[in-house]
Amino acid sequence: MPNTHPTTHMHREALQASDMLKGQLANIKHTSALVDVIKALHPSSFITVARGSSDHAAHYFAYLVMQELGILTVSLPPSLVTLHHAPLKVSSSVAFGFSQSGASPDLVDTLTHLGEHGAQTIACVNQANSALEQAAHLSWAIDAGQELSVAATKSCLGIMTLAAQFVAVWRDDQQMLEALLSLVDQFTHPVQSVPNRVLDVFGMAKRVFVIGRGLSHSIALEAALKMKETCAIQSEAFSVAEVRHGPMRLIEANYPVVVFITPGPEQQQLIDFSIEMRARGAHVLAVCATETHVLDSLVRAGVMILDAHDGKTPLCSTLAPIAALQRFYVFLSELALHRDMDPDRPLYLNKVTQTH
Amino acid sequence: MPNTHPTTHMHREALQASDMLKGQLANIKHTSALVDVIKALHPSSFITVARGSSDHAAHYFAYLVMQELGILTVSLPPSLVTLHHAPLKVSSSVAFGFSQSGASPDLVDTLTHLGEHGAQTIACVNQANSALEQAAHLSWAIDAGQELSVAATKSCLGIMTLAAQFVAVWRDDQQMLEALLSLVDQFTHPVQSVPNRVLDVFGMAKRVFVIGRGLSHSIALEAALKMKETCAIQSEAFSVAEVRHGPMRLIEANYPVVVFITPGPEQQQLIDFSIEMRARGAHVLAVCATETHVLDSLVRAGVMILDAHDGKTPLCSTLAPIAALQRFYVFLSELALHRDMDPDRPLYLNKVTQTH
Repeated sequence: MPNTHPTTHMHREALQASDMLKGQLANIKHTSALVDVIKALHPSSFITVARGSSDHAAHYFAYLVMQELGILTVSLPPSLVTLHHAPLKVSSSVAFGFSQSGASPDLVDTLTHLGEHGAQTIACVNQANSALEQAAHLSWAIDAGQELSVAATKSCLGIMTLAAQFVAVWRDDQQMLEALLSLVDQFTHPVQSVPNRVLDVFGMAKRVFVIGRGLSHSIALEAALKMKETCAIQSEAFSVAEVRHGPMRLIEANYPVVVFITPGPEQQQLIDFSIEMRARGAHVLAVCATETHVLDSLVRAGVMILDAHDGKTPLCSTLAPIAALQRFYVFLSELALHRDMDPDRPLYLNKVTQTH
Repeated sequence: MPNTHPTTHMHREALQASDMLKGQLANIKHTSALVDVIKALHPSSFITVARGSSDHAAHYFAYLVMQELGILTVSLPPSLVTLHHAPLKVSSSVAFGFSQSGASPDLVDTLTHLGEHGAQTIACVNQANSALEQAAHLSWAIDAGQELSVAATKSCLGIMTLAAQFVAVWRDDQQMLEALLSLVDQFTHPVQSVPNRVLDVFGMAKRVFVIGRGLSHSIALEAALKMKETCAIQSEAFSVAEVRHGPMRLIEANYPVVVFITPGPEQQQLIDFSIEMRARGAHVLAVCATETHVLDSLVRAGVMILDAHDGKTPLCSTLAPIAALQRFYVFLSELALHRDMDPDRPLYLNKVTQTH
């Protein structure tokens, strides 16, 4: 039975990603103007400054920019500026600060410093009139609307969809722009209930590995953080290449593993890994945003499936990870309730984290 | 009673870091020559390419280079090259491939590609005549000697000590060069036995958080990986700033936490966090490479201490994290034995990981 009645802010706001993306695409001229300014600067590199969920979206942005535009992109630890006053050479760089609230002092201080040392600075924020926006040369609105759940969902998806628009506009890539329009529909896809077996396994889990690669590694990082925040499960993300450097010794019988499976050159490795770990006796959940026929070998191997594809809209390798993440957010809201936790009010977590 | 009789390769090789560093300093002219070549290129950015433990040492290199030299440094995911053939603009960059064996195909392919697209490439490898060295324009030997333990220790420490020499030579920083000489002695410091309470807590642990910040965050990343590899504990590293963005909800009564405490502007935050988590009821182990008086407040709060400072050699903020990591390696060897595991032969792990 389709689970179409969200009972948490987290669930409801994840589904609101559809309206958010529709709004972003209606205002794509703002992103185009930003692209024009940045292209004219011929930057030697990009810098991202972000924390938590926004940093995972920044990771998606960085990978996509390097993959498609070839511009080297550094994730800058704010402590380099706030604690060490590092003599950073950034006069030919463009720095992007990503934040839902735009209120974290360390991000504001870092972007201010980079601007003072010659970088062009851009605040990508959801809350209007934020301190981060005031600290930056240019602003780039996420426009996700109000977010009531403490665990960010649509604002994180919103940075990723903006990143995709940025690259599509830069390359004048009509196919990607059309795929973004399709993603609006994909985001409204009524979500199917989670199979009972999945809730049984993850309802009891204390430790989980979350696996992706390339763009889907960014998604895995975010999924692992949200799993900690909302479900108190110690979940850690790895690239399918890195997990073989030691961590996978922990994966034994009944160990729960989540694998994001999306189209592209990484896909076969992720399928092979899922089947290999299932053969080892692990409980493997594949969060799939890909063609249906791909699922056959997974199902035959006994891998559990969370299908993020509506079966109609074609999914490109760039956007499929975003669709998979939305599906995973909805699953996590349901899983948290199943574990008697409130996903909207995680323990010890505030909407704005004060770090200096 | 001092535990001066290593029974594992891992323990023995961690202590061999002293001879390794002595050898590196005797041949520091190689690093000086490398610095001269790179300075003359006036690079706009550095790139690191590495996996596993070497990637954590690369993380130390990147942070130190940004902190002291101000040169932006990108950690490049090899999949951008090996799977996506990304059109990377790297003609004004210098790329460093870090690897113990120099044999991993994805690193070789990535460094080759970067060299073909205009980057100056440098292989920093322990094994002589490796494929990575042949693929690069220049080589920079770690010279750690043979490493028999599958879990890398001295070769990882060796990349970090080379990184420190690189920065010291670049800045002509005599104080740092003297501190490196002191580190040779520090590395030979006979290691005290681990308190029984520490072995009791970590002997049973299944989940651990490892905390650092700045340079000690690199150490925390490496410590967490080794804890997974050698002790099958799911340990995850965080910056003390990032852990407040949600993950710390998992830290409750009796939860085991490791915190690296080293001199510098991060130190007070790490002390405060240790005491705060102890007050929450967590078991907190502080791995300290700092002045003795700093430990008082930790001890009073009930924090367990693993002291990595010999009490004589002064430790600077740049090198203290390396001393702390060496101490932690020796502890992990002992902990693995306590858990009836062989730290020299972790399950499922080979010296060379084949990734494409």
